[in-house]
Amino acid sequence: MEDKAQIQEAIKSQGEVVRKLKSEKASKEQIDEEVAKLLELKARLGGDEGKHQFVLKTAKGTRDYNPKQMAIRERVFNTIISSFKRHGAETIDTPVFELKETLTGKYGEDSKLIYDLKDQGGELLSLRYDLTVPFARYLAMNKITNIKRYHIAKVYRRDNPAMTRGRYREFYQCDFDIAGQYDAMIPDAECLKIVHEILNELDLGDFCIKVNDRRILDGMFAVCGVPDNKFRTICSTVDKLDKMPWDEVKKEMVEEKGLSEEAADQIGEYVSMQGGRDLAERLLQDQKMSQSKQACAGLSDIKLLFSYLELFQVTDKVVFDLSLARGLDYYTGVIYEAVLTQAGVTLASAEAENGAPAEERVSVGSVAGGGRYDGLVGMFDPKGRRVPCVGVSIGIERIFSIMEQKAEASAEKVRTTEVQVLVASAQKNLLEERLKLISELWEAGIKAELMYKKNPKLLSQLQYCEESGIPLVAILGEQELKDGVVKLRMVATREEADISRADLIDEIRRRTPQA
Amino acid sequence: MEDKAQIQEAIKSQGEVVRKLKSEKASKEQIDEEVAKLLELKARLGGDEGKHQFVLKTAKGTRDYNPKQMAIRERVFNTIISSFKRHGAETIDTPVFELKETLTGKYGEDSKLIYDLKDQGGELLSLRYDLTVPFARYLAMNKITNIKRYHIAKVYRRDNPAMTRGRYREFYQCDFDIAGQYDAMIPDAECLKIVHEILNELDLGDFCIKVNDRRILDGMFAVCGVPDNKFRTICSTVDKLDKMPWDEVKKEMVEEKGLSEEAADQIGEYVSMQGGRDLAERLLQDQKMSQSKQACAGLSDIKLLFSYLELFQVTDKVVFDLSLARGLDYYTGVIYEAVLTQAGVTLASAEAENGAPAEERVSVGSVAGGGRYDGLVGMFDPKGRRVPCVGVSIGIERIFSIMEQKAEASAEKVRTTEVQVLVASAQKNLLEERLKLISELWEAGIKAELMYKKNPKLLSQLQYCEESGIPLVAILGEQELKDGVVKLRMVATREEADISRADLIDEIRRRTPQA
Repeated sequence: MEDKAQIQEAIKSQGEVVRKLKSEKASKEQIDEEVAKLLELKARLGGDEGKHQFVLKTAKGTRDYNPKQMAIRERVFNTIISSFKRHGAETIDTPVFELKETLTGKYGEDSKLIYDLKDQGGELLSLRYDLTVPFARYLAMNKITNIKRYHIAKVYRRDNPAMTRGRYREFYQCDFDIAGQYDAMIPDAECLKIVHEILNELDLGDFCIKVNDRRILDGMFAVCGVPDNKFRTICSTVDKLDKMPWDEVKKEMVEEKGLSEEAADQIGEYVSMQGGRDLAERLLQDQKMSQSKQACAGLSDIKLLFSYLELFQVTDKVVFDLSLARGLDYYTGVIYEAVLTQAGVTLASAEAENGAPAEERVSVGSVAGGGRYDGLVGMFDPKGRRVPCVGVSIGIERIFSIMEQKAEASAEKVRTTEVQVLVASAQKNLLEERLKLISELWEAGIKAELMYKKNPKLLSQLQYCEESGIPLVAILGEQELKDGVVKLRMVATREEADISRADLIDEIRRRTPQA
Repeated sequence: MEDKAQIQEAIKSQGEVVRKLKSEKASKEQIDEEVAKLLELKARLGGDEGKHQFVLKTAKGTRDYNPKQMAIRERVFNTIISSFKRHGAETIDTPVFELKETLTGKYGEDSKLIYDLKDQGGELLSLRYDLTVPFARYLAMNKITNIKRYHIAKVYRRDNPAMTRGRYREFYQCDFDIAGQYDAMIPDAECLKIVHEILNELDLGDFCIKVNDRRILDGMFAVCGVPDNKFRTICSTVDKLDKMPWDEVKKEMVEEKGLSEEAADQIGEYVSMQGGRDLAERLLQDQKMSQSKQACAGLSDIKLLFSYLELFQVTDKVVFDLSLARGLDYYTGVIYEAVLTQAGVTLASAEAENGAPAEERVSVGSVAGGGRYDGLVGMFDPKGRRVPCVGVSIGIERIFSIMEQKAEASAEKVRTTEVQVLVASAQKNLLEERLKLISELWEAGIKAELMYKKNPKLLSQLQYCEESGIPLVAILGEQELKDGVVKLRMVATREEADISRADLIDEIRRRTPQA
């Protein structure tokens, strides 16, 4: 038994913590967490203090989706899936957990963020961290050498959640990948075309797709005099350029990572370069850069890529940016990342209210990213057979956050059902007649509801339609039954018309065209 | 370091195990498992034996879905979701894991099947075991007293998998529930109507929906002389009647659970009864049964339920069956379960080949189940406020298995993409022209592919269409480009026509009507 007085003391001081946070207008998240601790303490007081007190919350960094959020999510998914299907992608699914060793050695430092399952006897399992590694495992396991597939599913990272910015521990990824030995840059160009299509169609405001190549980065490091064994760590410092000014990045390179000032300055010159096909051409002539075979291979591919992107008419949004690095270990060629150039601002202001630290506020919204990873499948193949892959992942949570804010801000009401008609009665004792009619409507494929009351008031039935956006009411009364008609009421205009039972279904269809 | 000789010895004997299983034609599952063990051993030999050997498999009891399976899955989901939407349901989503204590005390003995996450610091988490408990947590947490929602998501049970029968450790549930204080049996009848609709539309062969009520079971136990504290355990024995003959069930009641033979015989009489509204009426007059208030309440509700089901015209498939018990602790009123009366046979024969034990082969396929659970939400509410609920869960994995076998058996080819046209070239050096054309088609919303080769052969392009079921090929050649036309080829008939570039999009749409 625990010491009750001690727990009661703890409850008191935890209560103070909660009150303080509330008075300081701390973030909901923070308050919820402390309230949870408080409830837990109260629960420990046990039975004689009343009912057991459940901690009523979802796990840290996760959330439920309510019907309104689901309606928005469905819309976003439909746009994305349409684009994937337009490009001829099949879809696959993999389990939410993998053997632990499948994920081992794929994520570098981020491996510490993987969720493991408890050892309950049997295999050691981990929740998937992304969809790319399971995809590579799937290809190797089934000896598939050619596929174009999409996969939309949740992935799990024990990261520090920042939910107001759309960063969760459980979140969706929407991945499109092309696996196979093909001619250079054709599938890569299609991936960028898809990002362009999706971001356009989602109407999130202006965006920009940055493109670079791992080989250009490595070549650049080599010609700038970075020692071979420091490529990865210097690369991860370059990756911070979207959040930190050059001065600080340079400082990290020199002071923390021990790079010479001269090398850092040379890198600094390159990573400030942005352009298109012309920049790739110029760098191919660059005295220093052209010394690296790797860099030249990358630059030639960027040139080719841009020529295809011109045919796809997407070069307006694509920038060759030498500062783009991307963290993941497995990329081997082209890499890219799409950022919103307006919406980042919207999200940032929402979070400023919740007291997010200032440095987070300025970060721009990356909403898609990807690249070429030609070596990953080979890591799973017993004989090391390579299956070249290129893909893109749409960062859906941030997009949801923006769409939700848009919906909130707009006057338009988000409907959470597609119900066309409410079957209602004007008098008592007509439940049986309502059930009979609604059954006919369902049979005909009409989306219809009735109130689950024997004798609902007409007014409350009409109110229900107003609230939930149902456009039509089919009203039954003694007179209508005698006449073999139904009174059809248009909720928006309050207009009513008697429709014969035989015509009712057509009339409902005519008045509520379905997508 | 491990002793190499010892591992090599283990590899040898494990090799024997695999060979033996193969020669005995054991199930694929069983063989895969032993092969995995073998690979694991080999991997332990380490680096100098060549590349590290990954165990290339999914976790026990789980599977990937390939594109063909996904196409079937999508079709099944669309049917189910259409029905849910037709009945005006919203949808929600909850995280894949919950706080461990949220699941505690909800599943009785089955709790041992819950997957726990490893304690990596922070909260103790478990994977959801069903969608009902997270739904109740969601209602209580958000103080929702009225909702009609569906939820389609994966749930997790550390059960003994029987994958050929569609029993997995990771599997989908499709739940539809109505929460709210309503007049008796109206929402309950709608749930049964939905099961009837879905099973009809999926066209799985004949089926039967068994209905009973927890209160009738409890009342029956009481009047048959079962001691109060044995209700649950006797109930779980009754639940075995669909898999065991009455003799064995009785034996378990008397010998294992210590029930008197007389009581068991009385139960035996009742649980053999099946009927409709008439049976409920007869039992209301039954001398013994009518002594139980609880039983009478249940019987009256069954009577009322049948009167609504008659109006819904579904009584042809619904049977009031006093042997239906259902395992879960949380049911409080009406319970039901749908079984396929033909398809069970199909599945059984598939699994007979794989050497499943005989007793498993006879079990009939339950494909949907549910009932009323008026107390569950109150378990989460700090003040114990009740939100009455009734719902149904469609057991989708078994349905998938049947649909897959059907697809396999039929000549019809399952397409895994919806591509309308392949953009092809008849000569070399036309990649740019293909890219330009396909970009125009995508822009117009046409689903189109091209081969990722600079100069693919026309024949291989045509073959690709045959294999993947693409109905049209838009062929570009020097002549076509000069004439401003595209040669449109119908893959099935090999018919070809020159179409002007201006008319191409309309022509493709006309020839490939989309759903």
